[in-house]
Parts: sequence; structure tokens; C-alpha cells
Amino acid sequence: MNNELQQRCRGINLVVFDFDGVFTDNRVLTLEDGREAVFCSRADGFGLAAAREVGLKLLVLSKEVNPVVGARCRKLGIESIQGCDDKAHRLRQEVESHGITLAETAYLGNDINDIPCLELVGLPACVADSWPEVFPHCHYVTERRGGEGAVREFCELLVTARRQGLRRE
Amino acid sequence: MNNELQQRCRGINLVVFDFDGVFTDNRVLTLEDGREAVFCSRADGFGLAAAREVGLKLLVLSKEVNPVVGARCRKLGIESIQGCDDKAHRLRQEVESHGITLAETAYLGNDINDIPCLELVGLPACVADSWPEVFPHCHYVTERRGGEGAVREFCELLVTARRQGLRRE
Amino acid sequence: MNNELQQRCRGINLVVFDFDGVFTDNRVLTLEDGREAVFCSRADGFGLAAAREVGLKLLVLSKEVNPVVGARCRKLGIESIQGCDDKAHRLRQEVESHGITLAETAYLGNDINDIPCLELVGLPACVADSWPEVFPHCHYVTERRGGEGAVREFCELLVTARRQGLRRE
Amino acid sequence: MNNELQQRCRGINLVVFDFDGVFTDNRVLTLEDGREAVFCSRADGFGLAAAREVGLKLLVLSKEVNPVVGARCRKLGIESIQGCDDKAHRLRQEVESHGITLAETAYLGNDINDIPCLELVGLPACVADSWPEVFPHCHYVTERRGGEGAVREFCELLVTARRQGLRRE
Repeated sequence: MNNELQQRCRGINLVVFDFDGVFTDNRVLTLEDGREAVFCSRADGFGLAAAREVGLKLLVLSKEVNPVVGARCRKLGIESIQGCDDKAHRLRQEVESHGITLAETAYLGNDINDIPCLELVGLPACVADSWPEVFPHCHYVTERRGGEGAVREFCELLVTARRQGLRRE
Repeated sequence: MNNELQQRCRGINLVVFDFDGVFTDNRVLTLEDGREAVFCSRADGFGLAAAREVGLKLLVLSKEVNPVVGARCRKLGIESIQGCDDKAHRLRQEVESHGITLAETAYLGNDINDIPCLELVGLPACVADSWPEVFPHCHYVTERRGGEGAVREFCELLVTARRQGLRRE
Repeated sequence: MNNELQQRCRGINLVVFDFDGVFTDNRVLTLEDGREAVFCSRADGFGLAAAREVGLKLLVLSKEVNPVVGARCRKLGIESIQGCDDKAHRLRQEVESHGITLAETAYLGNDINDIPCLELVGLPACVADSWPEVFPHCHYVTERRGGEGAVREFCELLVTARRQGLRRE
Repeated sequence: MNNELQQRCRGINLVVFDFDGVFTDNRVLTLEDGREAVFCSRADGFGLAAAREVGLKLLVLSKEVNPVVGARCRKLGIESIQGCDDKAHRLRQEVESHGITLAETAYLGNDINDIPCLELVGLPACVADSWPEVFPHCHYVTERRGGEGAVREFCELLVTARRQGLRRE
């Protein structure tokens, strides 16, 4: 981890995640009655637990209004906000209501509707298999793909940086 | 994009898609009671929205009569016609009823039953993982595989060409 | 196709398939209530239809007793026999009841319990991702993996050989 | 198989498996109502049967309390213990109740919560796609990934070693 990335990581207090393509591989299983299902990784739970332990706040912001988002986030014990057509607007509100700043916020996304959020936060990041337009807006790209442990990798990055920061103080 | 492809793309007013293998990875999940489910990509919605915005008409023609086709197309807001044993015949009817010509029509397929349609239209195309017999009939092959964003890639190609055309006028 | 393979293919009148790992990728989706689901390829239907057209008889022999096998085979219009603990014994019975010989039979499998059947038939074959012990018993290995079009590829091999044979007569 | 590995394998009487990431690819399919489903490999059943035949005891220890674990293990005829927050503690209890020693126990895992168990047993092992922290604690890494036959590969390793040991006696 280079110095600039370490500095950015240490200042983070809130981590915001897109759902589809980040917690999932961006695919959706469509059933005959229109219900949907998504593939997530068991690995992510360990990363979110570690992030919570060092005091990081966690939030999912999703454009989709879909019961699977709520179902998965409840299982992981992470707050989710769905139906965000204007994710950047909602992100500003949430950051304010948490009493922190955008500079203290990290965002992990994968697609073009994440770009307005990525442009606002202190640590903009995306998963390895993001849509091409997204990469230029990010300071960190996870090695893992969405739904294959990218959430855990990003959490571990922030946890490691925070622990190193505490040791130096 | 070379000049000939650009010319073909700019003239398109109707985009017709096969469903299985184009919106999906050509696999079907079979449940014990015979119901089926298919994997689609969340990415495709962005491409279809962009195509609709520039005025392209969109249509799904599927050989299968299957509730999953209707369910997925309703979610994406795209008209679907199922149970087309003779897809080329139905394609001619649809093109006529839309008041346009076959030359103004693009078709994205993946398998041998798409070939009669591909031979009729102005811009015949197929996904990266099409069945071998299909490629010789196509002017464009998407880099992405079916169910992994091929629909979006094809929409973006047409949208870009149309916008470049408008700028030159 | 070399000459020996062509000779073997032309003599085939009955094609017998294992189900799991041949029509599927050998994975099973386990639901909370113990029900199962499997992934199949839409591509296989075209191959089975072509095989039926040239007069080949088709049969699925499965060790598993599972509603998904019946559900998928009904959809494809292919007869299935489930619960074959001794597949070789059942194969002999079926071949006899069809009034043909084992030399006129092809078998496509993927795992060790297919070996006794592979040793009996005129054209023993397996899918690309078969278990290692299976390959030495086979005269043909499909390029495609189970659940990714291996059934279609094997059908097309037999159809092509039969058509070439008819042309020469 | 080198000599030391053979020695370790021959002494094993109990094989303990983690479930997620070992019997599965570590992904979970989340449905709208919060129910889950997982992908397993049909191949594993053959390995477990062979292990049982040579007298090996088999056990699944899972952190998750989830009906899919029980459903899959019932199908495979293998005992499962769920909800193990302290897997090492539970492992000690089980080993004792089976009347054997930790040195006679093998453990196949994939993630950080398996490490305390891996440190206790005579043959610690993990699947090819384990989380990086796990590998240094293992004497054997399967070539196959979790959910793609890793369980079978590990069983076959133990069965082969035991048979070679018997031949030498």
C-alpha cells in the first residue's frame, strides 16, 4: 500500500457499498414468476465483521428496490437503502446524518450510476470487473471481482490501514 | 468502429434480440417441478435505457414459450414475442408493423435458428460465444458473451454511432 | 474425423447419455428444503432434435432418482430411466428391448460409474471435464464440457457421420 | 505422494470438513424471502462413499446454522454439526467422543475461522481457492476448488494411502 492510499484509508469512518456487481457478480437469476435471486460470497461476512470491529460504519446504497438486497444485508447485519435514483444526493444526506464528512467516506461501486458518488468521496473505489467508464474515477481497484470477495478485500484494506495508523500514534 | 459499420449502425431504427444465449448465458436452471430460471446481467438495463433515449425501438423474439422471458423483459421494459418457430417470418411482420424496413433493423443472436433473421436485416450481429455456424452471417460480434453484458455492448455501439451521426449533420 | 471414428459413428442406432455432468455441469443447487436444481444448456436441444431427425434413438440412464432428471428430459422429449445402481445391467436390457446390439450403441458419460457401460458399447465417449479415470475407456472426448453443449456436439458428430454415410451409398 | 504425506494420511481415522467453500464454491444464492441455496458437486458423493468403505469416519463442522447444510449432508449421508462459533472447541469434543486422537484426524477447510482447527489436527488441509491466510497452516492443498470436487480429491488421497498401507502390512 503506497503512502497516499494509506493516508486516504486511515481517514475513513464510513464505508458505502453499491449492491449489484459489488456484493454480487452483477447477474440476477430470474424465476418464472418474476422473482429474483443473486449470488453472493460467504467470504464477505468476515471482512464486514472486521470493519465493524475497528469502528467503521457500513452502508449499502442500491438503485434497485429488491427484496434480495434487504434479505442479504439483514443476513450480514448491514444497513441498506434501496431505490436511490439519485445516489449522490442520498449519499450526501447519509453522510451528514452520520455526522461525518464526505472526505471521511469510502465508496465501492462497479457501474456508471456509481460515478457521481465516486466523485464526492475521500476514497473512491471499484471492483476488478467494473464497467470501463468507472475505473478513471477510482483511487483503488480491488483485485477480486464483485461477488467473489471484493467487499472483504476492501474492508481488509481499510482495517489494515486503520490498525497501522493506531500503532503509529 | 470502421466506416462501413458506422454507416450500418446509423441507419438502424429497430433492434431485435434473441433471448436465450443473448440476455442469458444460454443455460437454464431446471427445478424439480419443471419450472425454469435463467441468469441475466444487471448491466444490460443501462444499455437498453440509453438505446431507448436516442429513439431506438427494441424487441425480443424468442423461440421458447417461457414465463422467464416475459418476466425478464417486463423488468427491463422491453416488448417480447415468444413461441416464434419461424422467427424470420415473424421478424418481417414486426418490421412492417413498426413502419420501417429490414435495412433499418439490427438483430443480435447466438444460435442456428437465428440465421434466417440475420440474413434479412441491415445489421446482423451475434454474441462472442455464439454457436460456430452463426459467425459467418454477422457483421458484428460483441466482445462480451451472452448474459455478461453483450446486450449493453450492442446498444452502446448503436447509440454511439447515432450520436456521432447527429453531430455531423 | 478419422476413418475409424467415422465407421464407428455410422453404425450407431441408439445413443445413451448419463445425466449429471453430461446434460449438466455436474453441480447441483441445494435448496433449504432439500430440493435440488441443475444447470443445463439450451444448446443441447438443437443437437437432440437433429439426432432424432436422422433416426437415432435417444435414452438417458441416471443413477440418481431425482425429479430434475425427469423434468429436464420431458422438456427435451427424451426418455429417461432413473435409479440405475447397475447401469451396465440396465443398458443391456434397454439395448435388447430396442432390438439392436451393443455395437450399435453409443454412450456419453463423465464419471467412474459410467465405465462399465463404456466398456460395453460400440462408441464409448465422455465429456471434456470427465473424471480422470474415465478417459482411457473412451474413443471420443467432446471438446465441450458437460452442461455447456457436450450433448449437442456428440449428437452433431453422429448426425454428420450418418449423413456422410448415406451420401456415399 | 511423498513419504511424509503418506505417513500422515495412513494414520487418519476421522475426516472433518468445513461446509461453505469446501462442499460449495463459497457462494450463496440469496432469494427474495431470505432463503438461501448453494452449489455443490455431484462428484463428491463418490469420494465420500469410497472413504466410508475403507472405514474412515466423516463429519461436517459448520459455523453457519443453515438448513442447506443439513439438507446436503443428509443427501450425502454424512453427519453435520452446525452453529460452531468455536470450531476448535467443538472439534476437540467430537474427536474425544469418537474415541480417537487429534493426530488421527484430518481437517479440510478454506477460510480464517478454520485455522484453529487446522492447527490441532494430524493432517491439516485446504482447498485450492482458500483465503490466503489459510495456506501456511496446511500440509496438503487440493488441486480442485471448493464445490468442484475438492472433497472427493481429499477422500481419494486418504483412501489411496490407507490401501497402500494395508498392502504393505
